[in-house]
Amino acid sequence: MSIVRIGVIGAGNMGADHVNTLHRHVSGAVVTMVADLDEERAAGVAGALPDARATGDPYAVIADPEVDAVVVASHDTTHADLSVAAVRAAKAVLCEKPLAPTLSECVRVVQEERQAGQGLISLGFMRRFDPAYVELKEALAAGVCGAPLLLRCVSRGVSSAPGATDEFSITGSAIHEFDTVPWLLDSPITEVSWHAPRSTTATGLRDPQLMLLRTADGALTTVEVFLNAGYGYDVRCEVAGERGTLALTNPARLVTDSARARSLGYPADWRPRFADAYRLELQAWIDAVATGSASPLATAHDGLVAGAVAKAVIVSMKNGGRTIAVQVPEV
Amino acid sequence: MSIVRIGVIGAGNMGADHVNTLHRHVSGAVVTMVADLDEERAAGVAGALPDARATGDPYAVIADPEVDAVVVASHDTTHADLSVAAVRAAKAVLCEKPLAPTLSECVRVVQEERQAGQGLISLGFMRRFDPAYVELKEALAAGVCGAPLLLRCVSRGVSSAPGATDEFSITGSAIHEFDTVPWLLDSPITEVSWHAPRSTTATGLRDPQLMLLRTADGALTTVEVFLNAGYGYDVRCEVAGERGTLALTNPARLVTDSARARSLGYPADWRPRFADAYRLELQAWIDAVATGSASPLATAHDGLVAGAVAKAVIVSMKNGGRTIAVQVPEV
Amino acid sequence: MSIVRIGVIGAGNMGADHVNTLHRHVSGAVVTMVADLDEERAAGVAGALPDARATGDPYAVIADPEVDAVVVASHDTTHADLSVAAVRAAKAVLCEKPLAPTLSECVRVVQEERQAGQGLISLGFMRRFDPAYVELKEALAAGVCGAPLLLRCVSRGVSSAPGATDEFSITGSAIHEFDTVPWLLDSPITEVSWHAPRSTTATGLRDPQLMLLRTADGALTTVEVFLNAGYGYDVRCEVAGERGTLALTNPARLVTDSARARSLGYPADWRPRFADAYRLELQAWIDAVATGSASPLATAHDGLVAGAVAKAVIVSMKNGGRTIAVQVPEV
Amino acid sequence: MSIVRIGVIGAGNMGADHVNTLHRHVSGAVVTMVADLDEERAAGVAGALPDARATGDPYAVIADPEVDAVVVASHDTTHADLSVAAVRAAKAVLCEKPLAPTLSECVRVVQEERQAGQGLISLGFMRRFDPAYVELKEALAAGVCGAPLLLRCVSRGVSSAPGATDEFSITGSAIHEFDTVPWLLDSPITEVSWHAPRSTTATGLRDPQLMLLRTADGALTTVEVFLNAGYGYDVRCEVAGERGTLALTNPARLVTDSARARSLGYPADWRPRFADAYRLELQAWIDAVATGSASPLATAHDGLVAGAVAKAVIVSMKNGGRTIAVQVPEV
Repeated sequence: MSIVRIGVIGAGNMGADHVNTLHRHVSGAVVTMVADLDEERAAGVAGALPDARATGDPYAVIADPEVDAVVVASHDTTHADLSVAAVRAAKAVLCEKPLAPTLSECVRVVQEERQAGQGLISLGFMRRFDPAYVELKEALAAGVCGAPLLLRCVSRGVSSAPGATDEFSITGSAIHEFDTVPWLLDSPITEVSWHAPRSTTATGLRDPQLMLLRTADGALTTVEVFLNAGYGYDVRCEVAGERGTLALTNPARLVTDSARARSLGYPADWRPRFADAYRLELQAWIDAVATGSASPLATAHDGLVAGAVAKAVIVSMKNGGRTIAVQVPEV
Repeated sequence: MSIVRIGVIGAGNMGADHVNTLHRHVSGAVVTMVADLDEERAAGVAGALPDARATGDPYAVIADPEVDAVVVASHDTTHADLSVAAVRAAKAVLCEKPLAPTLSECVRVVQEERQAGQGLISLGFMRRFDPAYVELKEALAAGVCGAPLLLRCVSRGVSSAPGATDEFSITGSAIHEFDTVPWLLDSPITEVSWHAPRSTTATGLRDPQLMLLRTADGALTTVEVFLNAGYGYDVRCEVAGERGTLALTNPARLVTDSARARSLGYPADWRPRFADAYRLELQAWIDAVATGSASPLATAHDGLVAGAVAKAVIVSMKNGGRTIAVQVPEV
Repeated sequence: MSIVRIGVIGAGNMGADHVNTLHRHVSGAVVTMVADLDEERAAGVAGALPDARATGDPYAVIADPEVDAVVVASHDTTHADLSVAAVRAAKAVLCEKPLAPTLSECVRVVQEERQAGQGLISLGFMRRFDPAYVELKEALAAGVCGAPLLLRCVSRGVSSAPGATDEFSITGSAIHEFDTVPWLLDSPITEVSWHAPRSTTATGLRDPQLMLLRTADGALTTVEVFLNAGYGYDVRCEVAGERGTLALTNPARLVTDSARARSLGYPADWRPRFADAYRLELQAWIDAVATGSASPLATAHDGLVAGAVAKAVIVSMKNGGRTIAVQVPEV
Repeated sequence: MSIVRIGVIGAGNMGADHVNTLHRHVSGAVVTMVADLDEERAAGVAGALPDARATGDPYAVIADPEVDAVVVASHDTTHADLSVAAVRAAKAVLCEKPLAPTLSECVRVVQEERQAGQGLISLGFMRRFDPAYVELKEALAAGVCGAPLLLRCVSRGVSSAPGATDEFSITGSAIHEFDTVPWLLDSPITEVSWHAPRSTTATGLRDPQLMLLRTADGALTTVEVFLNAGYGYDVRCEVAGERGTLALTNPARLVTDSARARSLGYPADWRPRFADAYRLELQAWIDAVATGSASPLATAHDGLVAGAVAKAVIVSMKNGGRTIAVQVPEV
């Protein structure tokens, strides 16, 4: 049995979650190193494992001979440089989304990957492994609702993180939809526009936001992002097609009758909702690394494409909601 | 257009509700008299109508020449005598359930009705007019789930009325199920047994109670009555048949996302749940009276049969849950 | 008891439905005349009633001394003239929506009504009486979900009627939303834009359509109209506010387990969905006419306002989805 | 990293499923041997793994030095002997339910385990690891619905396996509930009775069956087992307590609108419903074996207790539904 030795860069929520999942729920993987600029934080996460070392230097992880592959879960601004370094070291890397905060950086990463030979970078668009989204994609492909015409994607959270900006709703939250929609439809996003009601009074942000996306197949998608929806973490996806509709159900496992109400609970954040997606994504990645086969995860180029959509939406936002064509740089 | 002139006996919750429904929502009816032993209460209810007189004497209503038909919504112990008086006066009567608290009284009423000629008495088993139960009966008859094998009936309320007894759960609440089940299945209840968990601490009552009913068609029904369920008024009915199941949905019209929950509301009592059933029952009764056709409501004999089931359940309760055969007196 | 004598103009589906509801389910009304250009059809509908005459001349209904008030349920193009005639005859009229197919005609009707004295015309925006929409409005007003930010209205049908046009989706179907949204929010629609995916292949129509509506309170509404959705008649309404959401539930009364599926049924058209709304609307109108009080129904001016929104949406449709300000003519 | 080497006995559906789960989804395990009386079947399952040998002799698996722990998923009648052999070889064993088909055999296994020292046997009551049941148990413990009074457990399948008997519904299907109910309530089953409607015409079996269970805490449980329910695999669990209710939701991930229905799908068998439960059960078992800590799975004694309940239910079945006290043999 060949065990893939993993180095995880970033020991914040996301990184610690990946370490825990790899250690406890993934077959064939062992975490051997954990890096964080805050070395104590790295040590805390590594210390919970039997076999892992901690470091404050992310590049030491990439260079380490006992690291076969790298997970990048550090700050968004470091994704590009670390992914490039891993590629140059000829190591497989699973980079959390986004590939990079700017489109030009995305282009650079993809170019570096091309030069090194295809496919070392996988991108953490984990919804592609969420069992509900996977079922939805399969049902669409099977024609259950006929050819898709209208999609509705909703991403709501309890409250925005400190420092969130109007752009973050697009590059940090809606970016998931920019990957999910073309993946579901097997058709690229070609045109976008940005709209919003008056904002919630919770913050100074433009929140909620509503985006219209056109795909090459002629379908029209509305994307709602509402960071400060208050009531819970709630992700929805519905498709109306020529013969019917398909939608994700509410994933709550219990229903409660109490105090004049029949109710399902919402989680406070994304972790319970997407725990399975992250687990299955990591497992699929480990399996591919172990066997040397092509990664079934999203690629660096998928990240570049989603970044191009995000850029077009931001242009629309800054231009009164004008319709903007998506331009994907040739690489 | 012939208008049926109605006298309503009983101006409590039930009687006042009937008066209001007849006046505001039923075609072809006018309430001309309201009686209550508490004459002021009668006057209060009658005073809200343009054309109605009040009285403290229920028999005056029955005798009045401006009353074509009578609604009996007074205390359960008065139902038999008032129904008999109406029958003797050759007036149609809609008697609230139960026909009488004891089986022997039920027999007497049915005998009196026989002597006067068939069919003057209608009994207020309003679920037969509830659109959801009607749909369920139609779907059963259409074979949607195949021949019925198992039924589950649940009646839950917020809290029991003062003075409620262990028998009341049977004669006052489960009695609805004793009519509904044979009506749905078109098959009489032949055998019953009574069971209960330890009681809720809310009262000294045996509450909740669970009854098993066998019908002649071989189906087996569980009836749960839980007067002090606390969370809301909640009536459920499910049927499992040879090829599938049928069940009533939760009738809430709104769903709310709030404070980490997705919820439907429950009403505090039966009124919102069965308002339509009462309206349609009264309309069907008025239509029959107006045209002199046979009442489509439950009959006095249906009330007697339900009373016989209730009696058997009480015998089981008093005999450690023994299985008891239902004996319907020949009339 | 004063009975309001009603003349119904139009004996098609809608008119026949109103006649039936008035006769069988409304208190205090009697239908005395039925008119239709097809006199046989009028006779067929009138013949089912005990006291009604038929005519081929709608103006004879308005003029008849045994008609106290008029229901106009004839072709859309006749609504304006018949309403004006009723107003001139000083008779209350319940006109089916739309008030008129063009905005200029709407203006004319409102002007005529002004001259005759306020309020003789009621407009059949029956959703205002649908118990679910009424509960939604009450919950919004009670602040259950906080101040509304985003609304989503969906109107889907099985298939479009022969002769349907791209404009009909707006003036005949979305028009309900153009009244419902400002009624729910208590805020007028100020700006609209029209969008659509590629069309369903069922017809040559632009179908489905998606409209964005802004209201003066800053909320943003999406309206989807999909006449050929195929799977069933399905009307949805959801509101996301500052603290949560509110939405209408699926109104099916039965749930069925059968053949590997748990399912709720959809009706083939609007009749089962809105039967209660029509009944309660007619009852409220009859009550107002009987007592001479102000009608609680939508007014002619409400119809004019909805017509102005429809006009703006059509302008947007013809101009590539440009955002168009709603201009309500001063009357 | 210490890898636990597993031998799996039984290469039928259940055994092959365990092999696949251990290999693909469990951290820290490797399957090194697969046994089946049908050696070709064993070879087929083992051949899909990189490192596994096949054998026709289950005892060879237990004796093999490269097997640290054993999974018993062979025929029910072999469970006792194989578990005892593993215990004697001082190897941890995960035995599929039931521990043994007869109570006396269960006693023998528990006695052998006692002699060998506690706790080598874990029993495959996987519902204890199903995320939905775990949430239900936690919510009960947290008092969300108050103290439990009534439980309802439903187990329905599409069709019974060839050779199913009336007893199998109890020992092979209801046995899950006999473990789940006391685990959920933390209170043993003390008394049972067996009931049934006329049987479905699908087979000659007594099917469906309904059992009443009393627990020491005073709660009353109904268990419905319906092997030939036809419409799908459907497991339900509801609890009504002093202040409200708790129930498992339908786990379908997609909802479809199509052909006049809104529907959720049912699986054809238990695999999709309990895949996660099996995975988490195996992971918990491997973790315990790896660290030498006590297994968190059900014990051999739990299996004996469930067997005692099954025996009492069978006695009731054979005695006209009489109430039977559960007698757990002292070991």
